Amino acid sequence: MMLKYPNGKPYKPKNEAPKIRTKKNKDFSYSNRGKTLEEEINETNAYYLSRQIAIIHKKPVPIQIVKVEYPKRSAAVIREAYFRTPSTTDYNGVWNGYYIDFEAKETESTSSFPLKNVHEHQITHMKNVVNQQGITFTIVRFSKLNRYFLLPFSVLYEAWCNMKEGGRKSIPIETFETKSYEIIPGYNPRIDYISIIKNYICNKEC
Amino acid sequence: MMLKYPNGKPYKPKNEAPKIRTKKNKDFSYSNRGKTLEEEINETNAYYLSRQIAIIHKKPVPIQIVKVEYPKRSAAVIREAYFRTPSTTDYNGVWNGYYIDFEAKETESTSSFPLKNVHEHQITHMKNVVNQQGITFTIVRFSKLNRYFLLPFSVLYEAWCNMKEGGRKSIPIETFETKSYEIIPGYNPRIDYISIIKNYICNKEC
Repeated sequence: MMLKYPNGKPYKPKNEAPKIRTKKNKDFSYSNRGKTLEEEINETNAYYLSRQIAIIHKKPVPIQIVKVEYPKRSAAVIREAYFRTPSTTDYNGVWNGYYIDFEAKETESTSSFPLKNVHEHQITHMKNVVNQQGITFTIVRFSKLNRYFLLPFSVLYEAWCNMKEGGRKSIPIETFETKSYEIIPGYNPRIDYISIIKNYICNKEC
Repeated sequence: MMLKYPNGKPYKPKNEAPKIRTKKNKDFSYSNRGKTLEEEINETNAYYLSRQIAIIHKKPVPIQIVKVEYPKRSAAVIREAYFRTPSTTDYNGVWNGYYIDFEAKETESTSSFPLKNVHEHQITHMKNVVNQQGITFTIVRFSKLNRYFLLPFSVLYEAWCNMKEGGRKSIPIETFETKSYEIIPGYNPRIDYISIIKNYICNKEC
């Protein structure tokens, strides 16, 4: 039942926080909800860099530049350019003497990670990295579940080869739960993948 | 003295190769003269990749994209974008488990390498890489001399700090000859810097 003042306005109990405040609190506790995985990883890398934990950078998007103008007294302006297909993964760098190389992928699915998110050239590149004894993986965010996983290349590659032979076109979340490493998102660093490498992967494989 | 045929045309001895052939031979023996250092290193990296010797890529130039058009039935066109200052070096990757990170610089000087070719952010980045036990250096080409050197970061950093304290603003070629590694250019790979790392740097330091 809604209570009303004599003037007809609805009664609002004093102990109830104003709506805007509730919204703010919600925004605070889920402060990373609106961010893309790329933004979260960039923040994480900035944290690692500032603490000298690891030196990992996102590679710029490759562009084919066709036309550049050089206006007087101001910076050069690119007037015609096209996006090119990258031949590598998005992130790479060095941690503690190890070469680190990874891709970041998001999915809206709550049950599996569709392999159509992965490109042939990325698989080829990651295979090359493994041959050179680098550490390579994919960070997968199940956006709707707010869950993050570090998917080792070996697991991805198995699923990829299986798909190529006519098998399943996605990796079920159960495989992530059993064969990959869940990253519990924090505040700073947000997506602490280096801890996973340190505690799990390098203890076993490095 | 020029000999002539009775019809007035100049006599050309048979054992002299036609001019075009001489030119071709010259082009062959100096076939890399017209190439930039970047092109030579890209070729070298392509060779390493094809032979699975090392996985090294040039990073794309970072661009700030302002306006993109999406014409119907054709690729997206970038209509306004600006060059950004890179925060790292140009090349990185992995060889035999080692993280490799370097910059390539050319100079027209025949006596020294001017440090104005090097940027503060590159020094900072290379220092960070050394702290994480990566291998970092600069490949310097003295274009007029057709000489190439792998300049270890320690030597560059010493000269850089010296300059900051009011010292010399360039590295003399004698320092290259005594404290860095000369790379003798070949055909394939053109600038075989991995051999230098393998034979000299990693024997001593890795």
